[in-house]
Amino acid sequence: MSISPLAPDSFPDMPPVAGLSLATAASGMKYQGRDDVLLICATPGSHFAGLFTRSDTAAAPVQWSQNRLAEGVCQTSPAAILTNAGNANAFTGGKGHQATMATADALAKAGNIDKNAILLASTGVIGEPLDTDCLTAQIPHLLAHDTASWHDAAKAIMTTDTFAKGATTTCQLDGKMVTICGIAKGSGMIAPDMATMLGYVATDAAVSAEMLHHILSRTNAESFNAISVDSDTSTNDSVFAIATGIAGNDEITSETHADFDLLYQAIQLVMIDLAKQIVCDGEGAQKLITIDILGADNDSDAYKIGMSVANSPLVKTAVAGSDANWGRIVMAVGKAGMGIDQNAIGVRIGGFDVAHDGQRVEDFDETPVAAHMQGRNIDIAVSVGAGSGTARVYTCDLTHGYISINADYRS
Amino acid sequence: MSISPLAPDSFPDMPPVAGLSLATAASGMKYQGRDDVLLICATPGSHFAGLFTRSDTAAAPVQWSQNRLAEGVCQTSPAAILTNAGNANAFTGGKGHQATMATADALAKAGNIDKNAILLASTGVIGEPLDTDCLTAQIPHLLAHDTASWHDAAKAIMTTDTFAKGATTTCQLDGKMVTICGIAKGSGMIAPDMATMLGYVATDAAVSAEMLHHILSRTNAESFNAISVDSDTSTNDSVFAIATGIAGNDEITSETHADFDLLYQAIQLVMIDLAKQIVCDGEGAQKLITIDILGADNDSDAYKIGMSVANSPLVKTAVAGSDANWGRIVMAVGKAGMGIDQNAIGVRIGGFDVAHDGQRVEDFDETPVAAHMQGRNIDIAVSVGAGSGTARVYTCDLTHGYISINADYRS
Repeated sequence: MSISPLAPDSFPDMPPVAGLSLATAASGMKYQGRDDVLLICATPGSHFAGLFTRSDTAAAPVQWSQNRLAEGVCQTSPAAILTNAGNANAFTGGKGHQATMATADALAKAGNIDKNAILLASTGVIGEPLDTDCLTAQIPHLLAHDTASWHDAAKAIMTTDTFAKGATTTCQLDGKMVTICGIAKGSGMIAPDMATMLGYVATDAAVSAEMLHHILSRTNAESFNAISVDSDTSTNDSVFAIATGIAGNDEITSETHADFDLLYQAIQLVMIDLAKQIVCDGEGAQKLITIDILGADNDSDAYKIGMSVANSPLVKTAVAGSDANWGRIVMAVGKAGMGIDQNAIGVRIGGFDVAHDGQRVEDFDETPVAAHMQGRNIDIAVSVGAGSGTARVYTCDLTHGYISINADYRS
Repeated sequence: MSISPLAPDSFPDMPPVAGLSLATAASGMKYQGRDDVLLICATPGSHFAGLFTRSDTAAAPVQWSQNRLAEGVCQTSPAAILTNAGNANAFTGGKGHQATMATADALAKAGNIDKNAILLASTGVIGEPLDTDCLTAQIPHLLAHDTASWHDAAKAIMTTDTFAKGATTTCQLDGKMVTICGIAKGSGMIAPDMATMLGYVATDAAVSAEMLHHILSRTNAESFNAISVDSDTSTNDSVFAIATGIAGNDEITSETHADFDLLYQAIQLVMIDLAKQIVCDGEGAQKLITIDILGADNDSDAYKIGMSVANSPLVKTAVAGSDANWGRIVMAVGKAGMGIDQNAIGVRIGGFDVAHDGQRVEDFDETPVAAHMQGRNIDIAVSVGAGSGTARVYTCDLTHGYISINADYRS
């Protein structure tokens, strides 16, 4: 599989996060000659937050981690996240739950960690029983070699990804320099039968578990939940945030804390960067499409209209063909069914007015729009009224590459 | 464009419907050398019913016809439906409404018909002003040559369709032989930028306007609303039913009428036949996929789960690749979010058990399933619980042909 033409030039230079260690290993479960297991361990007192797929067929490790992090259930502060790539342990029934328990047990014993402090994630084939022995056999190695880099970590969780995905930034909180690092994988909301988008963002900032969850939820809405490759939802989607607190800033315990916005914006930057990288690695993607919806009654309506455009096969194929076929955009806005007044619709492509007040602009000149459509980055903006609701979502074009990857993958 | 491999061998032998006349003409508005206008006229006293797209960006002729048929608004019994192919008259603002009025005016004057008794439909490019003169110039010809066949009529409304679509049946009501004829067009919920699915079903049975609307609504849910090619919704979708009453049976005025079920079933047969033909003409379609959902809490949940499977690009590409990738079916069932218990899920492909009780069957033998996947007709059945809710929906596979048609169409 050749690297996506939309991939960044290189993996970013990502520093360690104080209080966090990374370890990778090769289980041989599915892949040969590469690491496919990632262990993230955090110093005692670290805070964790997690968000998971809403699918009715959520995988066993998702259910395990959800239960560990569930409000009121979580008796123990989490300490580690173990991730494997190659087998999703999804739709595996009782065996799947036994596998998660056996994995957590093995790590708890070998690492002297409370079993309930262990989170699990997985990505790979759906419906095949997980070979737990393959996975647990690597635990001693993982515990003994915990100096992997973020690049190693990002590579270990890849499945059909054509490049490793990382993003990092820093900010000053309370006079202390704080680092935020994130990695992710995914190249399709669900890659072929390789299930999952996984994301991890870590910081040495001091922030309460409640505020960490709050920041993760809000930034997730603007990043991983604002992207679509093929509208399909994985059984294994999981996003984790970890804050070790080692930076020593005054702990952020509420939205009104003076440093809340700074940390929020830094995490937002990393999350959106990662999310866009997933779209750029969308199966067969040749173009990144950014869709802005303006003037909706509220942000929720704007988001639904944006995703209706982002998920429209006819819009995505038009972009693949570099065709300024704005009628399809209008169609996709209409099918969202948000009850907008079509006479208020305006469309801009690449900054050029195409339609306003519910019809094509007078003396429409397609030339500059057609030139924009030839590029790698396509910008579509739709105003749907005079409201204050806005949304920005990202998707990629739908190409022959998508069909080739997905029609021929398992055959 | 070559004819779909899923097309029927030939157009059916369809008799006239007593009390109904058909006329076609060539406007030259877009197509050369073919008819692209259809006028259907019904004898006075006929009953009409219509169903229309729910899109917020419904086209001007849709709004016109909706207003004519709206309950309480309709002062005049409809008498005719004028349809043009080539220009959808969608997203055309005030000009679009002026065009519909001018068209109806011209037909009303030339045909001595009440303007409010005229219904309009259209299909074609979105966003380009309709050339009303092209259309109205054909009205004298249409009124003077009203002996077109159903085959002529089905051909006149085609856009990107690769074959004309018709279906017919008869039944005995009250000792009288009754004919039901239907035609439709569509090869995508919305073909490229050619907007629309159009359907027309006509009978000489005597049935009240209210019961005709009721039968149309119910059978539409089982037919045109139970199909998906690409999940996109047209700005112009319209389905009409006409009953002339010439057969002379005792008029069906309630669901409890002795003949209600017979007429319902006959119209259902024609509607489902037409709907399946649209899927079989789906852009790039190589396989017809029939999806049955069983055991849901209610029919509405079953329908949503069925459409989630039917609209999943990953399921549709797997079928294109003749790949028995059942994990993608489970994923699509899960993402519908109907709150089902995944341990109750069972999957059958081509009648063979693949999964039950939330996991792959023991000693799963893929051989017969793989053989079924090689065929033209793919049957997927999913049981999701012990409820009584069921649904049957139809879709086609997602192939390179779809990308070629839609990425390259307007360029």
